[in-house]
Amino acid sequence: MLKLHGLEISGNTYKAQLLLSFLDIEYQLLPVDIENKQHKSPEFLRLNPRGEFPVLEDKENIIWDSQAILIYLARTYGDKHWFPDRALEMAAVAQWLSVANGDIFNSLAKARSILKLSYPGDLQDCQLKGKSVLIMIEQHLASRQAKGLDWIATEMPSIADIACYPYIALCEEGSISLNNYKSIHNWMSNIQNISGYISMPGITKPSTHET
Amino acid sequence: MLKLHGLEISGNTYKAQLLLSFLDIEYQLLPVDIENKQHKSPEFLRLNPRGEFPVLEDKENIIWDSQAILIYLARTYGDKHWFPDRALEMAAVAQWLSVANGDIFNSLAKARSILKLSYPGDLQDCQLKGKSVLIMIEQHLASRQAKGLDWIATEMPSIADIACYPYIALCEEGSISLNNYKSIHNWMSNIQNISGYISMPGITKPSTHET
Repeated sequence: MLKLHGLEISGNTYKAQLLLSFLDIEYQLLPVDIENKQHKSPEFLRLNPRGEFPVLEDKENIIWDSQAILIYLARTYGDKHWFPDRALEMAAVAQWLSVANGDIFNSLAKARSILKLSYPGDLQDCQLKGKSVLIMIEQHLASRQAKGLDWIATEMPSIADIACYPYIALCEEGSISLNNYKSIHNWMSNIQNISGYISMPGITKPSTHET
Repeated sequence: MLKLHGLEISGNTYKAQLLLSFLDIEYQLLPVDIENKQHKSPEFLRLNPRGEFPVLEDKENIIWDSQAILIYLARTYGDKHWFPDRALEMAAVAQWLSVANGDIFNSLAKARSILKLSYPGDLQDCQLKGKSVLIMIEQHLASRQAKGLDWIATEMPSIADIACYPYIALCEEGSISLNNYKSIHNWMSNIQNISGYISMPGITKPSTHET
């Protein structure tokens, strides 16, 4: 059985869990003991030299980094639409994987970790950047939805949707409002309606967001 | 002919230029007028909603984000080794694309942009983080080189090498020393010896680094 080292409150761990669930793959979640800094221990650093989670173990294959785990799972176990073969579609997915790991992580996710997990950082700066990221994504999704396109990168759900979803859906834990982003709410509903969808602590149904 | 919107002093633009040169593809570099914030203009935002460069135009295909451009070029014009098909190798490359866009960009590249381009930021923090990133990469490359493996992610040069290279090779512009990283220097020489290698302002030959 696959093993996933991670934490239930980690949005990056949840990305892997979400795809595992969409693909209906059994796995074991091995919680990382962050209080005792297990992820910085010599044993953990042998799994992942970055000292971060999630880390996936699939027999002798060890994959760290949420983007790499999504790509590995999609290519090993998933239908092609999760990470398409064609260069242009693959690049479109890769663009939004970068937005997830860069723009979204450095604003929405950081604001949440400052408020919820007492991490150091400039909350106001993260909230300000987070708002611009949400506006950019709202405009992008609105123009796609106007053309009948439901997903962030391609015509089908992809790992780009999975990568962008968690820290957007969790952003109110960083005191960033999700009100008034109609297209983002439509898109979140689309993801929540994929067969196999699971939630995580802090993510509520879109109906509770709408005011 | 392909068009690349970017800047000669941008390491992210250089990643695309390096692969274009390795693949022997003709292109036109369209310099972005950053003084007049061209990358935030409505026309540029139509190319890239993030308002960043590089952006690649290949006929009607528009690709933004350096990671996505590398993937697009590799899959469209390159041999498979640049971005391999097999899930495990593809994930290995994706891991180091994430290191390039996260760990390296948020430390080595930021320190350089604070010192060289007068960007705001905490220089000392970037330099401290940059040193840990270099140590992590040195250890990773040392253990690979001990097994006869020349490249950062797979058995052949890949876009992971191209993505990680520029801001490591430029890090002394952020006052972060590259002395005493023997395996990193070996690896940089390997890249510099690939047929079609081009340099960029600020990157010197490894011989000048060794003391």
